Amino acid sequence: MRTAVLAEPTHFELEERPRPSPGPDDVLVAIRDVGICGSDIHYYEHGRIGDYVVDYPLVLGHESAGEVVEAGENVTGLEPGDRVALEPGVPCRRCAHCKRGDYHLCEDVRFMATPPHDGAFAEYVAWPADFAYELPESVSTVEGALCEPLSVGIHACRRGNVGTGDTVLVTGAGPIGLLAMEAARAAGATDIVVSDVVGEKLDFAAERGADLTVDVTETDLETAIDEYTGGIGADVVVEASGADPSIQSTVDAVRRGGTVVLVGLADEATVPFDVLEVIDNEIDVHGSFRYKNTYDAAVDLLADDAVDVEGIVDFESPLDDVEAAFQRAMEPTAIKGMITLDS
Amino acid sequence: MRTAVLAEPTHFELEERPRPSPGPDDVLVAIRDVGICGSDIHYYEHGRIGDYVVDYPLVLGHESAGEVVEAGENVTGLEPGDRVALEPGVPCRRCAHCKRGDYHLCEDVRFMATPPHDGAFAEYVAWPADFAYELPESVSTVEGALCEPLSVGIHACRRGNVGTGDTVLVTGAGPIGLLAMEAARAAGATDIVVSDVVGEKLDFAAERGADLTVDVTETDLETAIDEYTGGIGADVVVEASGADPSIQSTVDAVRRGGTVVLVGLADEATVPFDVLEVIDNEIDVHGSFRYKNTYDAAVDLLADDAVDVEGIVDFESPLDDVEAAFQRAMEPTAIKGMITLDS
Amino acid sequence: MRTAVLAEPTHFELEERPRPSPGPDDVLVAIRDVGICGSDIHYYEHGRIGDYVVDYPLVLGHESAGEVVEAGENVTGLEPGDRVALEPGVPCRRCAHCKRGDYHLCEDVRFMATPPHDGAFAEYVAWPADFAYELPESVSTVEGALCEPLSVGIHACRRGNVGTGDTVLVTGAGPIGLLAMEAARAAGATDIVVSDVVGEKLDFAAERGADLTVDVTETDLETAIDEYTGGIGADVVVEASGADPSIQSTVDAVRRGGTVVLVGLADEATVPFDVLEVIDNEIDVHGSFRYKNTYDAAVDLLADDAVDVEGIVDFESPLDDVEAAFQRAMEPTAIKGMITLDS
Amino acid sequence: MRTAVLAEPTHFELEERPRPSPGPDDVLVAIRDVGICGSDIHYYEHGRIGDYVVDYPLVLGHESAGEVVEAGENVTGLEPGDRVALEPGVPCRRCAHCKRGDYHLCEDVRFMATPPHDGAFAEYVAWPADFAYELPESVSTVEGALCEPLSVGIHACRRGNVGTGDTVLVTGAGPIGLLAMEAARAAGATDIVVSDVVGEKLDFAAERGADLTVDVTETDLETAIDEYTGGIGADVVVEASGADPSIQSTVDAVRRGGTVVLVGLADEATVPFDVLEVIDNEIDVHGSFRYKNTYDAAVDLLADDAVDVEGIVDFESPLDDVEAAFQRAMEPTAIKGMITLDS
Repeated sequence: MRTAVLAEPTHFELEERPRPSPGPDDVLVAIRDVGICGSDIHYYEHGRIGDYVVDYPLVLGHESAGEVVEAGENVTGLEPGDRVALEPGVPCRRCAHCKRGDYHLCEDVRFMATPPHDGAFAEYVAWPADFAYELPESVSTVEGALCEPLSVGIHACRRGNVGTGDTVLVTGAGPIGLLAMEAARAAGATDIVVSDVVGEKLDFAAERGADLTVDVTETDLETAIDEYTGGIGADVVVEASGADPSIQSTVDAVRRGGTVVLVGLADEATVPFDVLEVIDNEIDVHGSFRYKNTYDAAVDLLADDAVDVEGIVDFESPLDDVEAAFQRAMEPTAIKGMITLDS
Repeated sequence: MRTAVLAEPTHFELEERPRPSPGPDDVLVAIRDVGICGSDIHYYEHGRIGDYVVDYPLVLGHESAGEVVEAGENVTGLEPGDRVALEPGVPCRRCAHCKRGDYHLCEDVRFMATPPHDGAFAEYVAWPADFAYELPESVSTVEGALCEPLSVGIHACRRGNVGTGDTVLVTGAGPIGLLAMEAARAAGATDIVVSDVVGEKLDFAAERGADLTVDVTETDLETAIDEYTGGIGADVVVEASGADPSIQSTVDAVRRGGTVVLVGLADEATVPFDVLEVIDNEIDVHGSFRYKNTYDAAVDLLADDAVDVEGIVDFESPLDDVEAAFQRAMEPTAIKGMITLDS
Repeated sequence: MRTAVLAEPTHFELEERPRPSPGPDDVLVAIRDVGICGSDIHYYEHGRIGDYVVDYPLVLGHESAGEVVEAGENVTGLEPGDRVALEPGVPCRRCAHCKRGDYHLCEDVRFMATPPHDGAFAEYVAWPADFAYELPESVSTVEGALCEPLSVGIHACRRGNVGTGDTVLVTGAGPIGLLAMEAARAAGATDIVVSDVVGEKLDFAAERGADLTVDVTETDLETAIDEYTGGIGADVVVEASGADPSIQSTVDAVRRGGTVVLVGLADEATVPFDVLEVIDNEIDVHGSFRYKNTYDAAVDLLADDAVDVEGIVDFESPLDDVEAAFQRAMEPTAIKGMITLDS
Repeated sequence: MRTAVLAEPTHFELEERPRPSPGPDDVLVAIRDVGICGSDIHYYEHGRIGDYVVDYPLVLGHESAGEVVEAGENVTGLEPGDRVALEPGVPCRRCAHCKRGDYHLCEDVRFMATPPHDGAFAEYVAWPADFAYELPESVSTVEGALCEPLSVGIHACRRGNVGTGDTVLVTGAGPIGLLAMEAARAAGATDIVVSDVVGEKLDFAAERGADLTVDVTETDLETAIDEYTGGIGADVVVEASGADPSIQSTVDAVRRGGTVVLVGLADEATVPFDVLEVIDNEIDVHGSFRYKNTYDAAVDLLADDAVDVEGIVDFESPLDDVEAAFQRAMEPTAIKGMITLDS
């Protein structure tokens, strides 16, 4: 099968690899669409993310969907012809985290495109059937691939306990911020404020329904939130930018007793944080790592038209053009690129 | 001021009463709209609900909204001209329930139109300002009055922990069932099934967006739910009919580990209940009593067009015609009547 | 290996069976102690519990502990010589329940001594290592076996959200009731009331620290609770008797806004239940089925002397005397029998 | 009545003031015992804590208990002769925080000994009866006064969701740390580690039952926790020192998916915090501010001997010696001083 392999930093090679064989609990999936994620770009450019160092060659891509072409003997509920979204992290199923339902915290998770595990920029992937989610007719495989970043948004909103009538501030208008906005709206948030440093991204957020956008290069975020909420603050802040000043501002923007969800990966591990504010205002600060138990909900929300994910895809490219696609995805105005494969 | 007084069973009298004086923490509200609730009809017909016995005369009506005409000296945040919805139950503010935030469970709550407390079928009501919620321009006083039954629906969904992607069964397509459906959708439910015994009501539920309706006079509810959910069952069942067979069926329709919310008042206190099912499937059965901390959310959802409440009002009548309005509201096809007062 | 086999109703046979071989993720455990549970007795007497029908022969016993004699190649953290308690239910690890952390609700769970799965009245059991919990020196294998019924009590208290300062009513002073009492005390309950119909059992509960005991053949439970709590009711009721009148009384004994946990299996599936009370007092009724993620806590509580389980064992018998032991366990005054095996 | 008044920085004056008159909902309490808190010492020395600046004269003391000598006309449940502990913060009862049950977050709380509100170093205090908690015979007024710092510990453990079997690290072995340890044990924690920089304090913590103590001037905290927990980390960390290095270390000492509770007031508002750790390990960081709904539990735990608070009082002084008592309380080895008043 054709496979796009990251052969060395900033260089893909297209090679032929043997088609994988599904185990008894696996499905073999002909990949149709794979999103390009910020982490893929980071590995492409830098060859590492924190402690995860690429041992070349590595296959990137973890936002994927496709069509089942073969099902292992133990598989029930899926058969050839079914279209599925693939949840990219498969845990050990045996540790305390897995048993508690926090399988995303499993230390032995096998996660696509995270060294040393290969990802989905390939014609076929064999994957455990219980991490493959059937797509109804009304949901495209592009949407299926986007269940992954949508899951990040859904999980962040769950970690923030977003509910009906809430005012939610999303800091950062990239794909995660935009999809957190979608998830927050679907969970009942009635007032959504989005902040960023790029005007075009804020305009796009406004088009997609943000009730207020704040360009923090021009406007003080705390002041803007105070004005919007009558001095109360946001019920929930979802920090999706990873920028230090934004992380620091979260505790000023959230209301007393409110929740800050940290999801955007900080550039620097250590950020000066106002812990007195956290104590005096009894704030909850919740880290949000990937997601768990979100794919069913993501597919249902898509089928119900309760969220819009396709709108954030600004270009699609075939697998053969993966290198050019990555170059384009690295432009500052890009939001989300998608690699498509023919049947 | 003009006041509609329930003078004896099934008989209203319109009389002039002195306009109430607001205390220092109260607002005086010129009432604009008051919904007719099932409990009003019950008092009108039977003179009692359970242990609550009418000591005539009594003023009915507890779903109300209007315009502030005077504000007590301690009141901040509201002034004459503001339009408000009135939350009809004011608690003692001092007991353990109040301190826990369960003020709706306060034993000393003063609740409109529940003997011996008068309600809102009158030109003016003086009410604590913190139980009066300002309506933005986009929300009508009819919608303001409907914040009350909508609150019942919001609270029921919170008691059921309804979230994104959930399948919710609502049993009973009266006003509470319909508004629970609205609240469930707003909270992220993507599949909503409604059951009832009256075809017209189910047709109306379908028009309003129910994904499946089940006429339990024709179809077995458990079978229908099993088919719809692939044998899993509903994540949450909101029982809004109060009918014994419906209450009994909830534990069969809910999924293993799911939640049943009981909100519809049963005809008989004691219902044969399958407790083995509750244990074996580890079901949560949650009583849902009125509401707490819902009005802000209700107003926000209305302002955001995230719920539709006006659509359930099938007629409006002036205060002078209250008797005729009650007769009409007692017809089986009626959903919700509204009494309107001029400025 | 020697194995006690239920060959037909009320008849055990001791036979030699091949010693099982542990799989790569399993440990082979030389069983030391196995408790006799009410369900074992029920299968022994009646050959079935509800839909579970014995297909003879069946090995009973699911409350077990012993010593590791062999560890599969993938096993880490356990080695021969370690003493372990065995959690008797092993789930599929793949379904939605398992992924949510509700592995005890897995439909495909393999549970010891539940037809068609054999239990632990045998010299050796091979069992997945992640369901074997190492016992520190200070915890005996008798205590290890009793982690099972203690787990039922811990899980029931978690389902009731028992916390510091709570008043807990436990209805039924059998092993589960007594261990629920231990778990409630360990979780911070400061007032524990126990009810039963057998005076000796109540005396025993009082000796073990119940703050009040109520013989419901002589005293009205609701009245007793009202007196004890100043008219408020219990914060949490753990129903551990399975008796219909007791189940019915839970909603009268619990406080407004409190929680009833149903854990004792009812004789009749259907019990007349006061649903109006559930609604008006906004009661949570939670079914409690077996347990999940309790064994670590059970072992820690035992090691910390925070609970006493050995005190409820009223006799021990060797495997060869299993039939006599069952006869003795069926006497009304018996609490908990234990089968012991030599090394 | 005799009153100890902070007349200027580091100077008390004893003066006669008129005995207060209780309002209709108040009790008049003859104060018996008042603890000296770190915040009292801070006001005594520095005349301010953050934005709270003393406008002299001010009466200090907010950890108090005494005997009811008069009850207002609306008061039920308390009468002259009853001994009570006083919860020192009385909220507005009307704001959104109060209605949610977060009355401790009320912006208009009247809190004893926090400028401009006088405290309890006086013969009498008039106080709302619903913030006065009756003490049973077995609980002394010294213990009653200590319900206040115990409440801080209980609330911190609730904020950390401490439960049966948990491993809890408490950083800081002052009064709050020691009482958090008591509260954690009462809530079911089976392994409690305490860290500090003062050996004597750690010795005292060990005497009081800490399972492990860590002197962070000699031992690396993360290493010590890793060893103790087999590399997993603590389920909950309660940060009770306020020291920057300790605050920073919390995220390294807590397990993946665990909770950090910040309760000790930091010297500097801004602390360098490892947010990547918070995200990657999906940690909950919860500020803990004072307490709510803890006094009933505190009294119950004391009456049940489930916690020991008197053991942390290292000296008692009469009101006339308040100045000397404060000097003594400022010594580094001091834990908790108590001012006692005669009847």
